[in-house]
Amino acid sequence: MIKAGIIGATGYAGAELVRLLLQREDVQIVWYGSKSYVGEDFSYIYRNVAHLTNETCRDDDMAGLADLADVIFTATPQGFCASQMTEEILQKARVIDLSADFRFKDADVYEKWYQIPHPAPRFLPEAVYGLPEINRDRIRGARLIANPGCYPTCAFLTLYPMVREKLIDTDTIIIDAKSGTSGAGRSAKVPSLYCEVNESMKPYGVATHRHTPEIEEQLSYAAGRPVTISFTPHLVPMNRGILVTAYASLTGPVTAEEVKAAYDKYYADEYFVRVMKPGLVPQTRWVEGSNFADIAFQIDERTNRLVMMGSIDNMVKGAAGQAVQNMNLMFGLPENTGLKQIPVFP
Amino acid sequence: MIKAGIIGATGYAGAELVRLLLQREDVQIVWYGSKSYVGEDFSYIYRNVAHLTNETCRDDDMAGLADLADVIFTATPQGFCASQMTEEILQKARVIDLSADFRFKDADVYEKWYQIPHPAPRFLPEAVYGLPEINRDRIRGARLIANPGCYPTCAFLTLYPMVREKLIDTDTIIIDAKSGTSGAGRSAKVPSLYCEVNESMKPYGVATHRHTPEIEEQLSYAAGRPVTISFTPHLVPMNRGILVTAYASLTGPVTAEEVKAAYDKYYADEYFVRVMKPGLVPQTRWVEGSNFADIAFQIDERTNRLVMMGSIDNMVKGAAGQAVQNMNLMFGLPENTGLKQIPVFP
Amino acid sequence: MIKAGIIGATGYAGAELVRLLLQREDVQIVWYGSKSYVGEDFSYIYRNVAHLTNETCRDDDMAGLADLADVIFTATPQGFCASQMTEEILQKARVIDLSADFRFKDADVYEKWYQIPHPAPRFLPEAVYGLPEINRDRIRGARLIANPGCYPTCAFLTLYPMVREKLIDTDTIIIDAKSGTSGAGRSAKVPSLYCEVNESMKPYGVATHRHTPEIEEQLSYAAGRPVTISFTPHLVPMNRGILVTAYASLTGPVTAEEVKAAYDKYYADEYFVRVMKPGLVPQTRWVEGSNFADIAFQIDERTNRLVMMGSIDNMVKGAAGQAVQNMNLMFGLPENTGLKQIPVFP
Amino acid sequence: MIKAGIIGATGYAGAELVRLLLQREDVQIVWYGSKSYVGEDFSYIYRNVAHLTNETCRDDDMAGLADLADVIFTATPQGFCASQMTEEILQKARVIDLSADFRFKDADVYEKWYQIPHPAPRFLPEAVYGLPEINRDRIRGARLIANPGCYPTCAFLTLYPMVREKLIDTDTIIIDAKSGTSGAGRSAKVPSLYCEVNESMKPYGVATHRHTPEIEEQLSYAAGRPVTISFTPHLVPMNRGILVTAYASLTGPVTAEEVKAAYDKYYADEYFVRVMKPGLVPQTRWVEGSNFADIAFQIDERTNRLVMMGSIDNMVKGAAGQAVQNMNLMFGLPENTGLKQIPVFP
Repeated sequence: MIKAGIIGATGYAGAELVRLLLQREDVQIVWYGSKSYVGEDFSYIYRNVAHLTNETCRDDDMAGLADLADVIFTATPQGFCASQMTEEILQKARVIDLSADFRFKDADVYEKWYQIPHPAPRFLPEAVYGLPEINRDRIRGARLIANPGCYPTCAFLTLYPMVREKLIDTDTIIIDAKSGTSGAGRSAKVPSLYCEVNESMKPYGVATHRHTPEIEEQLSYAAGRPVTISFTPHLVPMNRGILVTAYASLTGPVTAEEVKAAYDKYYADEYFVRVMKPGLVPQTRWVEGSNFADIAFQIDERTNRLVMMGSIDNMVKGAAGQAVQNMNLMFGLPENTGLKQIPVFP
Repeated sequence: MIKAGIIGATGYAGAELVRLLLQREDVQIVWYGSKSYVGEDFSYIYRNVAHLTNETCRDDDMAGLADLADVIFTATPQGFCASQMTEEILQKARVIDLSADFRFKDADVYEKWYQIPHPAPRFLPEAVYGLPEINRDRIRGARLIANPGCYPTCAFLTLYPMVREKLIDTDTIIIDAKSGTSGAGRSAKVPSLYCEVNESMKPYGVATHRHTPEIEEQLSYAAGRPVTISFTPHLVPMNRGILVTAYASLTGPVTAEEVKAAYDKYYADEYFVRVMKPGLVPQTRWVEGSNFADIAFQIDERTNRLVMMGSIDNMVKGAAGQAVQNMNLMFGLPENTGLKQIPVFP
Repeated sequence: MIKAGIIGATGYAGAELVRLLLQREDVQIVWYGSKSYVGEDFSYIYRNVAHLTNETCRDDDMAGLADLADVIFTATPQGFCASQMTEEILQKARVIDLSADFRFKDADVYEKWYQIPHPAPRFLPEAVYGLPEINRDRIRGARLIANPGCYPTCAFLTLYPMVREKLIDTDTIIIDAKSGTSGAGRSAKVPSLYCEVNESMKPYGVATHRHTPEIEEQLSYAAGRPVTISFTPHLVPMNRGILVTAYASLTGPVTAEEVKAAYDKYYADEYFVRVMKPGLVPQTRWVEGSNFADIAFQIDERTNRLVMMGSIDNMVKGAAGQAVQNMNLMFGLPENTGLKQIPVFP
Repeated sequence: MIKAGIIGATGYAGAELVRLLLQREDVQIVWYGSKSYVGEDFSYIYRNVAHLTNETCRDDDMAGLADLADVIFTATPQGFCASQMTEEILQKARVIDLSADFRFKDADVYEKWYQIPHPAPRFLPEAVYGLPEINRDRIRGARLIANPGCYPTCAFLTLYPMVREKLIDTDTIIIDAKSGTSGAGRSAKVPSLYCEVNESMKPYGVATHRHTPEIEEQLSYAAGRPVTISFTPHLVPMNRGILVTAYASLTGPVTAEEVKAAYDKYYADEYFVRVMKPGLVPQTRWVEGSNFADIAFQIDERTNRLVMMGSIDNMVKGAAGQAVQNMNLMFGLPENTGLKQIPVFP
C-alpha cells in the first residue's frame, strides 16, 4: 500500500489527484492538505467523492506529512514546494511537485519568468523533469520530480520526434495553444467567472507566458542546441482540454508516411501517446478524463511547413495523471496502473 | 469471461456501454453492432477508444449474436428489440434492452404512448424492470431486463421512499426535470445542432412525454394504488446530467430528520444512491461520468409541500451504467464491479 | 435630451443599461457610477463600448448625481438605494431602482426576506412597482420606480392572466424557474466560476428565495386575495435567459382556445409580450438580447393542471430593458423607444 | 425605402440579414427566400422575429426577385448565385453575394479550391470584393458585390496595415484562426451536433481550407506581390465569434508605438475597426452581435516576430453586417446606418 499525501488537495489539480488515487486499492490517501479549508470535510467541498471518503482537510505541513507518506504531491502555488523542501523530507518520502519550482535546471530562468527568487536551488540538479515518455529511466530512481506544465506536456510531445529527427527547422517553431478554463485554477477572480469566459475566446500572456522557457528548455535538449519559440496560449470556453497547433518549416522533402514513421519511432510503444493516421486531426473530447495524448500532423506543401497538432486533458496528462504516471514508475508499478480510464464522451 | 454484444453500439448510450465494458478484464465485447457503420472501425467513429480496440462494426443480427454472447445489450430505437426477440435468443443469452420495449406490463400503455404496435407482448410478463435498488432479487434471475429510462430512473429514485412511506400525497406529484443534450441521441437533426441548443433552454413534450407512464407505473407499485403525475422535461445546454425537481404536498407534519430517516431506510446501504444532508442540493456535476444518484430534499413549511431533488448522469445511471449494474447482478458479480468511476469534475 | 445617471454601472445590469442607453440619440449618460472602479475608463472595463464612450467611473453620490440627471438608475446591492433616498433627490430627478428596496409595500416583508432593516420605509407608499404591462398608468406619473426582479417579471407575466381570470386555483401554484448565470452578478465568487457552473445544473434557494414574496405580492393583487406559492430557481449553464415553468390546477373545464383568449385579453396589444399559439413552447434563445417575453401554455387533461411557460432575457426585460421601458413611460416617450432590438440568434 | 430580397434567408447568415434589416425603417424585406421552407412562416422558423413579420418563405427565383427588389442578398451555397446571374438581373437590382462565387478574379483559383466549375466567369471582372475598409469607393458604384468570407475579413483586417507598410515579411505569415460554430451553418450534420462540439476543440481543413486563397489574393494586392500563407481554422464551442492569431517575422526593428501608428494610419477613421492599445488582447465577447473588428498586436522581441490578433462576430462583420455595410455604401447612406448595435455582453 502506497501512502500518498496531497498538499493543495482542494485546487482543481489536487482534486483530480484525489479522483485518480481514491479509486485505487494499492494507494491510500493519508493527507488532504488545504490551507483554505482546514478542518472541513474534503467531500463537502468536492462532492463527487461524497460517501467515498470522510477525511478532513489539513493545514500545510510538508515536514509532518513526510513522516506519514511514501509520496507527497504538491499541487501548490509557485514557490511553495521549494520553500518547504529539505533533505530530510526527501530522505523520508518521494516528492512530486506539480508547480514550476523544479522544472528548470537554471534558477535564473525561473527567477526571470516567475519573478520570485528560487527558494531552494540546491535541489535543482537532482530534480527530474517528469515526462515519462522521455525521462522514464531517470524518473524511476528519482526522489524529486518536477511534474511538467500542461502546455509544455502537450507541446513537447507534439514536437519532440520532429525536433529529434531534425525534420523541422527549430528556428521557425510557432506554437499556438488553446486551453480549457480549468487551467486557470479555482481561485475566485472576475476573469474566470462563467459569464466572462463563456461564449468568448481570447489569447493571453502573448510572448510572455511562463510555459515558454519550459518548452524551450526541453526542446533544446531534444535538438541538442538552443531552441527559441513563439508561444501563444488561448482561453477556450470548455472545462478541460488542451489543443496545440504548432508550425515549423520542413528541413527537406518528406512524405506523410515518413513523418508518421518518425512519430512511431518514438511513440509506437507508448501506451498514452496515440499518433493518428495522416489526414486526421485531434479533438480534445477524445482524450477528456484520460491520460492519453493524441497527436497528428499535416504537411503543407504550398508553404513547405509542417503543421503538428496534439491534444491532452490538461487535468490528467497535463497535471494529475502524469503525476500518477510518475508515481507508478517511482514505485515500480506498471506505468498505466490506475490510469486506464477511457475518455468520457460526450 | 463474460462475452457481451452490443446492438446499437454507435449511439451515445451504446458507446457508453463500450466505455464501461472495454476497461473490464472480466468482460469481452464480442460484437459492436451498428447498422449505420457496418464494416467501419468502431474506434474510427469513437476515437476515445482509439488504440484500445480494433473491432469493426457489424450489421444487426440479434439471433446470430445470441450464439456468440452471454449477454446482449440493445441500445436501439423503440420497437427493435421486441421485433427481434425469440425464445431461442433468451435460451442462449441474457438480454438487457435499453429501449422502452419491455418496460410496461401492459402492452396497451406502450402502444398508446409510443404509437407503435408492440411486436412481442408475450415476453412482457417475464421482463424485469431493471432498477436494481428496487428489483435486485428479480434481476438476478432474469433472462430479459427492461433497462429503465433516464428520467424515470432519476424521478423514481428521488420519489420512491416518500411514496412508499406515504409521506406525500401522490395526487399532488409534479416532476419538473432537466436533461443534458446527450439524451437526444446522436442523430443529425436541426434541433440538436450546437447553435440551436447552446445558450438556450426549453421545455419539451409537455404533458405528453413518453417517460410519464413509465414513472407512473413504477410509482403506482410503490404506492399500492394508481398514481398520476405531471411531468415536464427540459433541454439544458450541457452534455450530460439529469436533474429532477419534484413537488408534492405532505400528508402530515414531518421534520427534516424524519424525511432523511425515511430516505436512509431505503438507501443507507445502497452504494450508488447518496442521500444528502438536509439543506444541501444536488448538482449534476457531482455525478458526471459516474453511476451515482444524488438525492436531497427541502420541506417548504409555508406551502406544506416537500421539494425532492435528484441528479444522475443520464448516460450512466440513466442508461449504460445501470445496464452494467444489471449485468453484474445477473452474472453473480458484486453490483458495483466496473462501476466505481469517481465523477469527473470539473 | 434625457440626462441619465447610472449608479452601479459596472455590474452586469448596470452595463446592460449602458448598452441600451448609449445607442440612443435622445439620452445622454451623464454618470457612470462604480465604487470599485472610480477613475477608470468605463470602456476599459466593458470593452464592448470601446471607442463609443470615454467617460470614467465615478464614486457613489446619489445626491450629487440628482443635480445633473433627469433620471437616476440604481443597479446596486439591496439597501443602497433606500439608504441614500431623500425627498430632495426625488424632487430633482426620477429614480428607477433595480434593487428590491422599494418592491414591497410592507417593510416587514422586506426585512424578513432580505434580513436587513429597511432604511427608508416612508417612500414605500409612493414607489410604483415598475411592471409596465400592469402598472403603466401609475408608472407614467411616478417619481420612484421599483424595477421588478428578473424571476418575478417572468413568473408574473406568465401567470397573471390566468390568475386574473380565475382559470387556475391559486392555492396550487408551483413555479419552477431556471436562469442563466448573469443573474448571479459579476462578483468574484467560487460558485460563479466557469468550471463550477459549466456542464452542471442545480437548484438553489429552495423554499427560501427572496423573489418568492415579490411574486406572491403581485399575484395577490391580481387574485384579490393572498396567494402563496412554491418557487424553486435553478442555475443553468448559459449567460442569459430565464425560463419559468409554472403549474396549477384548473378551476374548471377549459379549452386551449379559451386559455389563449384569456392571455390575449391582456397581452394582445402589448408590444413586448408574445403569446404563442397552443402547442408551442418558449425557448430562451428566441428572446436573448431583447425586451420580449414569450409565453405559452399546455393543458394537461390527465391531471387537470395547466402548465404555463414563459421566457425572458433576465438582463433586458428582467432588468435593464424594463428599467428603460419605465423611463420611456415616465418621460412621455413611446414605450418601446430604443427597445426594438431583435433577439440575437444563434 | 430600399426594397431588399434575401435568397437563403433561413440559413444563419440569411437570418442574421433579417435581424439587421427588419429593424430598419428605410428598408423593406420583400422576399424571404428559402428552398427548404417554401410556404412556411419565416417567423415560425426563426421565432426571434415572431410578431415582427408574417411573411412566408418563397422558393428560389432570382430573376423574379430582381423585378421586386432594389438589392438582392444571396446567402446560398457555393455556385448558386453565379449559376443564376444574368446581365438582366444586374440591370434591375444590385446583388450582394455572400458566397464565394465572385471573390476571386481568377476562375481557376475558384475551381481548384471549390472543386466546381465556375458558372459565370464573365462577371468576375466587374465584381467588387466587398471589404469597405479597403474598397469603399469601388463598392459605391458596384452592381455586384462579392461579400468576403468570415475568416478572410478578420484575417485581412488584422494583417493589412502591417503588409501594406512592409513591417512584416510576407513569406513568414502564419494565421491560426478560431471560430464559433455558427460558421458551420444550419444543416443537420453529426459533427455539428451539440454533444459533438461542446466541451471540445479541433482544427479542421488544415492546409486545405478554402478561405486560404481568398486571404492570399487580398494580401497579395496589399503587398504588391504574391503572398502565400499558412492558415489553420479551428472549431470552438461557442455560437459566434472569430479570433485570428497571426504570426510573421518583422522586417526590421520597430517599437510598439510605431506598430500602433501604422495601424492607426489605416483605421483611425474607421468606425468599425477598433485598434487596441499596446498590451491589450481582443476577446470575441467584446464584438458579439456587432459589426466591430477589434485588433491588437504584440511584439515578440525574443523571436523578432509580430503577433497580430483580431476578432469579429462571424455572423455580422463576417457575413450579414458587412453585407449591410456594403448595401449602405451602394445606396449612398452613411456606412454605419443600422449597424450601430453595441456588442451584447455577457
